Amino acid sequence: MRESPRSPAPDGPARSGGLTRAEVVSVGTELLLGQIVDTNASFLCSALADLGIGVYFRSTVGDNTGRVQEVFLHALSRADLILSTGGLGPTDDDLTVAAAAGALGLPLERHEEAWAHVQEFFRKRNRPLSSQQEKQAMLPRGARMIPNPRGSAPGVIIEHREKTLIFTPGVPREMKGMVQDTVIPYLRERGLAGREVIRSRVLRITLGESVVEDRLRDLMRSSLNPTIAPYAHTGECHVRLTARGTEAQVEPLLAGTEAAIRERLGPAVYGTGETTLEEAVAQALTAKRVSVAVAESCTGGLLGQRLTNPPGASAYMDGGVITYSNAAKRRWLGVPEALLEQHGAVSAEAAKAMAEAVRKQAGTDLGIAVTGIAGPTGGTVEKPVGLVYIALAHPGGTEVREVRYGTEPGRSGVRYLASQTALDMIRMHLAR
Amino acid sequence: MRESPRSPAPDGPARSGGLTRAEVVSVGTELLLGQIVDTNASFLCSALADLGIGVYFRSTVGDNTGRVQEVFLHALSRADLILSTGGLGPTDDDLTVAAAAGALGLPLERHEEAWAHVQEFFRKRNRPLSSQQEKQAMLPRGARMIPNPRGSAPGVIIEHREKTLIFTPGVPREMKGMVQDTVIPYLRERGLAGREVIRSRVLRITLGESVVEDRLRDLMRSSLNPTIAPYAHTGECHVRLTARGTEAQVEPLLAGTEAAIRERLGPAVYGTGETTLEEAVAQALTAKRVSVAVAESCTGGLLGQRLTNPPGASAYMDGGVITYSNAAKRRWLGVPEALLEQHGAVSAEAAKAMAEAVRKQAGTDLGIAVTGIAGPTGGTVEKPVGLVYIALAHPGGTEVREVRYGTEPGRSGVRYLASQTALDMIRMHLAR
Repeated sequence: MRESPRSPAPDGPARSGGLTRAEVVSVGTELLLGQIVDTNASFLCSALADLGIGVYFRSTVGDNTGRVQEVFLHALSRADLILSTGGLGPTDDDLTVAAAAGALGLPLERHEEAWAHVQEFFRKRNRPLSSQQEKQAMLPRGARMIPNPRGSAPGVIIEHREKTLIFTPGVPREMKGMVQDTVIPYLRERGLAGREVIRSRVLRITLGESVVEDRLRDLMRSSLNPTIAPYAHTGECHVRLTARGTEAQVEPLLAGTEAAIRERLGPAVYGTGETTLEEAVAQALTAKRVSVAVAESCTGGLLGQRLTNPPGASAYMDGGVITYSNAAKRRWLGVPEALLEQHGAVSAEAAKAMAEAVRKQAGTDLGIAVTGIAGPTGGTVEKPVGLVYIALAHPGGTEVREVRYGTEPGRSGVRYLASQTALDMIRMHLAR
Repeated sequence: MRESPRSPAPDGPARSGGLTRAEVVSVGTELLLGQIVDTNASFLCSALADLGIGVYFRSTVGDNTGRVQEVFLHALSRADLILSTGGLGPTDDDLTVAAAAGALGLPLERHEEAWAHVQEFFRKRNRPLSSQQEKQAMLPRGARMIPNPRGSAPGVIIEHREKTLIFTPGVPREMKGMVQDTVIPYLRERGLAGREVIRSRVLRITLGESVVEDRLRDLMRSSLNPTIAPYAHTGECHVRLTARGTEAQVEPLLAGTEAAIRERLGPAVYGTGETTLEEAVAQALTAKRVSVAVAESCTGGLLGQRLTNPPGASAYMDGGVITYSNAAKRRWLGVPEALLEQHGAVSAEAAKAMAEAVRKQAGTDLGIAVTGIAGPTGGTVEKPVGLVYIALAHPGGTEVREVRYGTEPGRSGVRYLASQTALDMIRMHLAR
């Protein structure tokens, strides 16, 4: 991961007037104890960036009235919009709304619509309504409620002296639902969304980060909008393009840079956004009506699992064998004892025999096999931990690749990398 | 996830004197854009809690000198110790140390030890040293350097007017290494660690959150130290115990409450800390010298993959078959065509036949089979999406479980839950 990729960010020098300045506030002692990673804050920041709203600060505070008030007052001094998450529940520790109301000098009142929601929530689930629950319907005077179809605590919007405060729950599913259903439309309607938005696109590439950086270095230097930032991932590299401009401008900016990168990297770019490598492979297999079977030793089923992750996998997947032991390699694939003795189970010969056998037995177009030493033990000088052979048997013959991942990725890393290489061999074969 | 579990937290009312008040500062525009989840901050908070240092606020700011200064000045006004992450690299955006030095009124000077480190880092990697790199060795006057064996940017410690500021890089691996190797020992030596620490222990349980809550409700209410907070996870529940006290006090407190919970929940508690269910199963299989083979339909290899995750899996794992298609079920397991026609591939009968066949072929003690409808399509009124049959064939016979996970978990959720139930059936069988 780059420490600090350049971004056409809210932190550029001169900004056009009228931009909403926002602060994201996360409330919860568990965050300060490090017991929970704050995925909510990044979700909220990303939603605000997408609306062209600048986030300049994020604050995190525990379940303590005085300190929550301090954080809200400080945020009010430097932001127009405060978007908070956490502390809306029924327990004594849930004090976000009451603390914020105190900071603003607003009295709490029972909000009848919110109270009806809380009662309905418990009635529908046949759960007893305790006196504690009424607390969730006590909103600052003049506040409006954000419906929460997924939980008991309603969200809250306060408009106060040209400032807007929005309170969402800490449960990610409830918070996200509220933001998508209510908060984003509300911010647009209120005219708080920016004329310029920040939009990202991620290209996913089956090359290492250093190779990608070498091939894109000049583009990365010259392209300021969008900026181009590579991030290393296990067995692949993601390149994030981040563009700033009006809704009409950002898409062509991103598309132009994506095209330039694709021209440099060719088929190594396997997808964009959230597309996984197995989805790209599944798409190619389905489109070309090619069937596949697997034979796995060190991956123990991981390759089959990944090939069957995408919905509709039955269009191309027959199945396969997990031949973890040598006995299983002989029994299910008929790999000759002599071959295993002469070359070892971790060998190009064994991988080839496994791939060809599973292809023949299953009657599929492709047979793919993986055998290697995932570690942490079992390595030798000649065959060290991280050595993996991957074979792809296809109608035109059998390709075998020897890869040495070393010890650094660890057992699960070696297994994942082996499945990644295997999937990419299928993808590259189909791209020919 | 509970919105706000009660914790014996830094936010309790009266605190013993002398406690170090810390603030964690994360620097990086990518955090404010929501492009990255801030796992560094939770790591740092957790390390501080473990040292008995109270974290009252966390702040996040972008790569902007003025705003970074503002955050440091504000943190200095309310904390004794500031621990920051991010913005130590060689680019123009990496401005954390310079900004903090400016806020403190300290001039930057080339730190010879740091400069030697940077030069050495590049020399060792045969990478050219650009003029930009010298920046990483420009430290505030009087600062000390934190070695960084994993990257180019050294960390920095400033002791200034009874305040301590510590700067670590944003690359997680480098930051964590620095904290473990240098920062924690430094804080202990300086006497900044607290007399009382906050220590957590997580119990991992193969029951749903609501069942766990029902069985532990009175314990959860009465136990204030440690507190008890359940968290829902896919196919299991984690209960976090959090104790406050001296080093000598916390372990017995945690052990006592763990024992009380184990008494209530029995063998459903499969492990503590980071132990995974497959590790618990692997341990039991290894200890009892029991061997296993798998037959997987809808999980497509996931169960085999999980069983072979733990190092040393060859002690118990023979292998198995992935019979995703009906043809594969006939071919590799000899499941009769008539059975598949009469009962369907997703049936108790098919699961039983698969488990028994794979056990017999592999000659293992156990055979475990999974067949179901992971979705999103392929469901019927009688056999809806989420219906899964899991069979465990053992020397005493064959057990079959029918489970209905519904559509809510989605395809990957149903697959994961099926593997979870299968692993737990093996575990429970071995516990008998």
